[in-house]
Amino acid sequence: MARYQVIIAYDGTHFRGFQRQATGRTVQGSIESALRKLGWQSKSILAAGRTDAGVHASGQVIAFDLVWEHSDQALKQALNAHLPFDVVARLVKQVQPAFHPRNDAIARRYRYALFTQAERDPLRERYAWRIWPAANLDRLHQTAACLIGKHDFAAFGTPPRIGDDTVRQIMGATWKVEEAYWVFEVSADAFLYHMVRRLVSLQIAIAQGQKPFDLLSQSLHQPTTPAGMVQGLAPPQGLVLAEVIYPSQDVFFRATPGELKFGENDCAKNLLP
Amino acid sequence: MARYQVIIAYDGTHFRGFQRQATGRTVQGSIESALRKLGWQSKSILAAGRTDAGVHASGQVIAFDLVWEHSDQALKQALNAHLPFDVVARLVKQVQPAFHPRNDAIARRYRYALFTQAERDPLRERYAWRIWPAANLDRLHQTAACLIGKHDFAAFGTPPRIGDDTVRQIMGATWKVEEAYWVFEVSADAFLYHMVRRLVSLQIAIAQGQKPFDLLSQSLHQPTTPAGMVQGLAPPQGLVLAEVIYPSQDVFFRATPGELKFGENDCAKNLLP
Repeated sequence: MARYQVIIAYDGTHFRGFQRQATGRTVQGSIESALRKLGWQSKSILAAGRTDAGVHASGQVIAFDLVWEHSDQALKQALNAHLPFDVVARLVKQVQPAFHPRNDAIARRYRYALFTQAERDPLRERYAWRIWPAANLDRLHQTAACLIGKHDFAAFGTPPRIGDDTVRQIMGATWKVEEAYWVFEVSADAFLYHMVRRLVSLQIAIAQGQKPFDLLSQSLHQPTTPAGMVQGLAPPQGLVLAEVIYPSQDVFFRATPGELKFGENDCAKNLLP
Repeated sequence: MARYQVIIAYDGTHFRGFQRQATGRTVQGSIESALRKLGWQSKSILAAGRTDAGVHASGQVIAFDLVWEHSDQALKQALNAHLPFDVVARLVKQVQPAFHPRNDAIARRYRYALFTQAERDPLRERYAWRIWPAANLDRLHQTAACLIGKHDFAAFGTPPRIGDDTVRQIMGATWKVEEAYWVFEVSADAFLYHMVRRLVSLQIAIAQGQKPFDLLSQSLHQPTTPAGMVQGLAPPQGLVLAEVIYPSQDVFFRATPGELKFGENDCAKNLLP
């Protein structure tokens, strides 16, 4: 028996989310079914995070214990032979028995893709949010800069358990232009439930001129009650869990800025006239 | 009663192709169903070209006659309200009654997207062909240059009717790198059945070192019997009918090179050591 770490990618369109449920197709359920065909008999796999229905992943991380006599590569192939077409094991590695994909993670990176168009777009709306009217990209660069740092994100999401801490540290937040898409890349030590989708929704509303810029810093600096939660949730299909980062990996996304002071970032600078 | 030209986009994944069939879901069938709800009663719409099952379009062109009392814009909205999620009318324009989307077209442009990866990829394989092992991009630039010009493409596809001419003129053929994808863009006066998918398949086989470079020019210069057809068909999901070009439009893709002499292009130049 050994513990394995597996990096998983999936198209979330036809799943009711990552986490196994009493009924409905889930990513976890699909992976556990595939593992059972390889002799796995435990109750549940471990995962770095739970993605919502419709959210995709290119770098979800799971772990499980398995009696396996062959190589890591052979396990990957065996697993992929049993996984459905919309889930794939990208990398398989035997790790130390105490490895826990959620508890050991020091950061997560998400990508959110959108494009601007008045009409529906059958070829792009499976993996991106279509927005209209157009947003101002310079404004988005400003809002993203305001997000960086350690803040109380209570207005942007709920913690795993009610009453838990809602302070999170965002290490990187940028908008990139990639062909016809604008992509928001954000990395943090951890994220609250629905946090990325609320961050995107509010930034777009500001960049479309529908909400005042101040609402962003107000939401960050004056944490609200649940009733004061930021309104609006960007749709799930634009979101991809891109990477989970562990201490033993080189952090690739942006040099970790170390511990930031609470509320410290370049936001004020950007707000100067 | 007036004739309307409509530019249509669709995700071909869940269609048995463009053309209406006795059974099965088709793009044409979906459009005709939507039109009937607007009072259209003819037997069949006209279309610029028939795409195969699984092939997408961002710029298919159709035409039909309709009694419509409102604006072109209102017709677009009404049509889109009745079309399924994977088909959309992008532009609607009332045109002269003799307009025929296939007969009047002077050129078509297709795009074929692929990427290189050993493992399956749930987030990319809906709209692109995954190839492995890697192909040589320089080689692809060379093969594309050989395609340009007027050739007998009998080895690459069949004409609409048996016995018809198989000479076609390719005005533009290029491989572009777009983020994680390599995209083959090709424009011609017209295409034979399966021609783009055979052109891609052969180029990739050559660029992977699996077939000799000479096979390309041989296939172009020594047209074969149907039994001598180029083997291999790139899968449909990488292909998009991107545009149909009419004389009244500005040609956007590449300045039309005018009539080329039979077989004339830069291929020989590229083949020099």
